[in-house]
Amino acid sequence: MMGNTETRKGVDLLSAASSGRKGNDGPVRLVPIAWDDIKRVVRLIDQTLLPTELKYIEISAMDAMCEAIAKLRVRGAPAIGIAGAFGVYLGVAGRNFSSEEEFFEALDGVCSEVACVRPTAVNLSWAVERVKRVAREAADAARVRGERADLEDLAEAILNEAIMMIDEDNRVCRAMGEHGAILIPEGASVLTHCNAGALATAGWGTALAALYIAKEQGKEFKVWVDETRPLLQGSRLTAFELMEAGIDVTVICDNMAASLMGRGEIDLVILGADRVAANGDVCNKIGTYGLACLAKMHGIPFFVACPTSTLDLSLASGAEIPIEERNPREVTHGFGRQTAPCGVGVYNPAFDVTPHHLVSAIITERGIVRPPYGPGLAAIMRD
Amino acid sequence: MMGNTETRKGVDLLSAASSGRKGNDGPVRLVPIAWDDIKRVVRLIDQTLLPTELKYIEISAMDAMCEAIAKLRVRGAPAIGIAGAFGVYLGVAGRNFSSEEEFFEALDGVCSEVACVRPTAVNLSWAVERVKRVAREAADAARVRGERADLEDLAEAILNEAIMMIDEDNRVCRAMGEHGAILIPEGASVLTHCNAGALATAGWGTALAALYIAKEQGKEFKVWVDETRPLLQGSRLTAFELMEAGIDVTVICDNMAASLMGRGEIDLVILGADRVAANGDVCNKIGTYGLACLAKMHGIPFFVACPTSTLDLSLASGAEIPIEERNPREVTHGFGRQTAPCGVGVYNPAFDVTPHHLVSAIITERGIVRPPYGPGLAAIMRD
Repeated sequence: MMGNTETRKGVDLLSAASSGRKGNDGPVRLVPIAWDDIKRVVRLIDQTLLPTELKYIEISAMDAMCEAIAKLRVRGAPAIGIAGAFGVYLGVAGRNFSSEEEFFEALDGVCSEVACVRPTAVNLSWAVERVKRVAREAADAARVRGERADLEDLAEAILNEAIMMIDEDNRVCRAMGEHGAILIPEGASVLTHCNAGALATAGWGTALAALYIAKEQGKEFKVWVDETRPLLQGSRLTAFELMEAGIDVTVICDNMAASLMGRGEIDLVILGADRVAANGDVCNKIGTYGLACLAKMHGIPFFVACPTSTLDLSLASGAEIPIEERNPREVTHGFGRQTAPCGVGVYNPAFDVTPHHLVSAIITERGIVRPPYGPGLAAIMRD
Repeated sequence: MMGNTETRKGVDLLSAASSGRKGNDGPVRLVPIAWDDIKRVVRLIDQTLLPTELKYIEISAMDAMCEAIAKLRVRGAPAIGIAGAFGVYLGVAGRNFSSEEEFFEALDGVCSEVACVRPTAVNLSWAVERVKRVAREAADAARVRGERADLEDLAEAILNEAIMMIDEDNRVCRAMGEHGAILIPEGASVLTHCNAGALATAGWGTALAALYIAKEQGKEFKVWVDETRPLLQGSRLTAFELMEAGIDVTVICDNMAASLMGRGEIDLVILGADRVAANGDVCNKIGTYGLACLAKMHGIPFFVACPTSTLDLSLASGAEIPIEERNPREVTHGFGRQTAPCGVGVYNPAFDVTPHHLVSAIITERGIVRPPYGPGLAAIMRD
């Protein structure tokens, strides 16, 4: 069930302390998901309430976690994966199992249930498989020692793995940010799109990590963010987390970016990726391709930040990436009011593919890759 | 006051007959403003209710007309001008004046009141001045004949001028449409932006007139329309009127156009203009410049349709056109829900300027102008 909930004012100090929200030595970043080891609950920012309310919810049961994932209270590929891992832990923790077999049978059921909540989210099934494997390995290790596995220890192994996933994500994102910050000059005017930020990860973000590190380094810069129709992740989430971090941010509608570029107001574009092919083609939130074209036409560097886990070298090019089409109501009823005639045709692709020749550099946790991407990406994956 | 109002079903036949809605020999076009000579009222489509309700309102008093203009029940430069002219008529009709002086004093007051409703709308003050001049000329003509002007005749002269403005607008738009239709090939896939349609004029539109005429000519084609943030004139109005006309229309978010172009799904772009400079630079709804850049990059023709009254040859280039910034709430609270954090910076320009080298042709009622625009536009204005 969902336990105590705390909103804005009451929670600031608490979250800074127990959720690891940074305060002193850098910009304040939001921590969308954290484990509270005293209360034994997962603490989540309910992102459906942003940008009007910053509310942390405490989750102590698998069902509540599944509901939070399904309702997009937690979103963003890395964050969903972590949430799923904790969900699996909550699904087996504190239950009485009479045997190891019963435990693993229950674990299988819990894992299927969690993974099914958002079946297309690759990170979710990946994370669920990962914690399942960890439990199995712990049982195997006990067997090798000639012992019977303590079933509580198996659950703890899952919890530790989930916590480790948070640490890993923070390490990867921070490394990406340190590489990316090199590309943010003092006084720069930066354009970003959608939310490739703290709210999509454990707390640093991918593209926005570069901005948080640049800010930590004392650089001054300005950020423009596309609102990012239809779901407005730019205005609802990116604007919110950059404001929280004390970074100068201005929201525009998606169709205004070109005008700013034409007037020389944008120095660089930086955004995230959902999948990158072996040749450097980038699949990302719809609108990315248009920005890449406009950046090229205006001679503006166009940077993509993503962890190496997003590189899919099994795909020769972006042409192989299927583009998910989403519910037309996101376009016609996006703001709680009907804004297009009943029955009108709607095209609502979630992503587009930006060909590699429009991408100036790809920023990963292992370094910055420049064209030609074929050899560059292959090399970074070998390292 | 606002008289009888009739919604959807009840009004279809009536509007087709008395408001001149076309039925038999071409696509059904909406008639946003018309004079009902039997009831002696102006019949308006209340555009604030679109796309969910097609409601005609009957206006029989100046105050109601001012309210309709202020609340954007009627919008679009040509339509606002016509509405203002009728508003002036309603402000003096049926009143008892003891002298010509008293009539003209009242007329001055009425004209100021109407023109002030949307002070930046050039067409409104232009139309108000035009009907005022007509009344003065009618009085002068009587004086020349050695008669005293019949004050009711002066009011009738204003009414006739307003009705003539509707006819003029229809003639100009239809001529523009006939020229524009030449540029719409059979089977074309057309992209448009904002609303340059029937709803912005007396009933034919500017850019959309080309589509109505092409449809009348029996051509088959498909239209994609950008929803056009922040005010969504594309999804609310253009999609609505094209559907009414039986034209195949699909709504997209503004950031999806590039992706369609990249996949070869757009054959041409056609849209309107708010002002065109002597060198062919085009000021139009924000987002136009971005589409023009994308069209250029993808080798797609980019057409602008506007009456010669929109050409402002006193401006050497678009650099001289001031860009109006509008209320940030259009972006942050667009449709009844807050979608960006409180206090965030917002940039909300209403227009942008597209340099002439990105424009393939400018369609006017006097013909199609191709580059170089300097001599071409000057010549068409001399004709």
